[in-house]
Amino acid sequence: MSTDSASYPKEPRNTVNRLSKRAAYDYETVHGIINSTSVLHVSFVPPSDDTNPAPIILPMIGQIGRYPKADDDAPSCYLHGHVSSRLMKVSSTAQQAEQSGLPVCIAATQVDGYVLALSPFSHSYNYRSAILQGVATVIDDEEEKLWAMTLITNSVIPNRWENSKSPPTNAEMQSTRILKVKIATASAKIRAEGPHDDKKDMQDEELLRKVWTGVVPVFEGFGRPVPSTYNAVETLPDDIRDYIRQENPRRKNDAIHAAKSDGPGK
Amino acid sequence: MSTDSASYPKEPRNTVNRLSKRAAYDYETVHGIINSTSVLHVSFVPPSDDTNPAPIILPMIGQIGRYPKADDDAPSCYLHGHVSSRLMKVSSTAQQAEQSGLPVCIAATQVDGYVLALSPFSHSYNYRSAILQGVATVIDDEEEKLWAMTLITNSVIPNRWENSKSPPTNAEMQSTRILKVKIATASAKIRAEGPHDDKKDMQDEELLRKVWTGVVPVFEGFGRPVPSTYNAVETLPDDIRDYIRQENPRRKNDAIHAAKSDGPGK
Repeated sequence: MSTDSASYPKEPRNTVNRLSKRAAYDYETVHGIINSTSVLHVSFVPPSDDTNPAPIILPMIGQIGRYPKADDDAPSCYLHGHVSSRLMKVSSTAQQAEQSGLPVCIAATQVDGYVLALSPFSHSYNYRSAILQGVATVIDDEEEKLWAMTLITNSVIPNRWENSKSPPTNAEMQSTRILKVKIATASAKIRAEGPHDDKKDMQDEELLRKVWTGVVPVFEGFGRPVPSTYNAVETLPDDIRDYIRQENPRRKNDAIHAAKSDGPGK
Repeated sequence: MSTDSASYPKEPRNTVNRLSKRAAYDYETVHGIINSTSVLHVSFVPPSDDTNPAPIILPMIGQIGRYPKADDDAPSCYLHGHVSSRLMKVSSTAQQAEQSGLPVCIAATQVDGYVLALSPFSHSYNYRSAILQGVATVIDDEEEKLWAMTLITNSVIPNRWENSKSPPTNAEMQSTRILKVKIATASAKIRAEGPHDDKKDMQDEELLRKVWTGVVPVFEGFGRPVPSTYNAVETLPDDIRDYIRQENPRRKNDAIHAAKSDGPGK
């Protein structure tokens, strides 16, 4: 389990049944999607006496990584949050109640294109999505917390941790919490191809002449950075400028490439 | 409750406690975010004997709308899915068990910018997010199902329902299911402003001279449409072309505007 060629086990609760040719379980694919998605959706069931449990979802920033000093070398998903946020409070309570932690589900989805077919029922999206289930605990170890904060900050803009204020004050460390999610199961699903229509529709010459079919590529882009009212650094730092220059064409090209691809296993 | 000036009630489970000045409960804000987000994240707890319930999340396409022939005029969230998908099966089972349906949570999040402050602990995102909780049932009424299919299809590209094949075949109607989520509670949270740093950091001249602060605008953009291998319509239809031409600059400008805004209640 120590290399990126490792995979998550296929168990009933994470096995993709529908359109399984689009599924993946390897670390590289799952972690790649989670770590390149700006916002993760984190779901958990808040404590309640209700017999019909209703989950809630919070948008959060996070990254999968391996803490170098961890006892095992299994990767975990680290989530960033404020000490007063609901999820942090619920997780702390779950730990204090001597449970192993709070069961959570984390999803990351990136839309790569709108897939327009002859029939509205054959319309689809190109996308990359990853889902993981695990148990969340609040990190107490100050060193692991700092390591995770660095990992998460640098995932937004390369080297941002090194290029902003350090070291943190005691108050900063106290007001911020990091949730560590030990990953139990995970899977990814990817669609990267043009539309598919039913055979009957494909043979309908009149329909083919009438309806445009193809993919509208969709991607996340960056605009020109806007300095704050108190910014005193005239030139945009190289790390920010280079990241935008590199990512904008890459993301657009990836979406176009997905639209032109023949898809997996075809 | 019949106009868009209506609001969702503030109850303990949907009231935003942290940074509540960024919260909104009105229909217009909540529905606006849900209906302009490409992919919704839907969470539910699958049936299990476990005493520690673990939710799962599925990415889905959906829209909030009011079915004109509904008994009441409360809006519902309509989700599109394949008949064999796990959520549709679980929802059907919940209905058959004579429960009122399946409790779900739906989240929509759009990232509008990376907010870079002096201290890594003051970094943030500009975003618009909406969360709703409700109960999901599978629609049996064929007319409402068709109405919802039209609503969802046209949310991806304007008039796409009218510009693709119709009417649907019996097989198409059978293979597609629409989940209707009656909305119990909902809320939205928006951050649209530049960075804020602690007073002490703001007075540190050396830090101010060293660290660039501001916002990198983030937006969802569209690339040039890619025709399918079987497309026979030479010219891109006006509805697709106009939508891309209108949305690309609008979304980019909105993200830049959020970065330059002073934020709510300030």
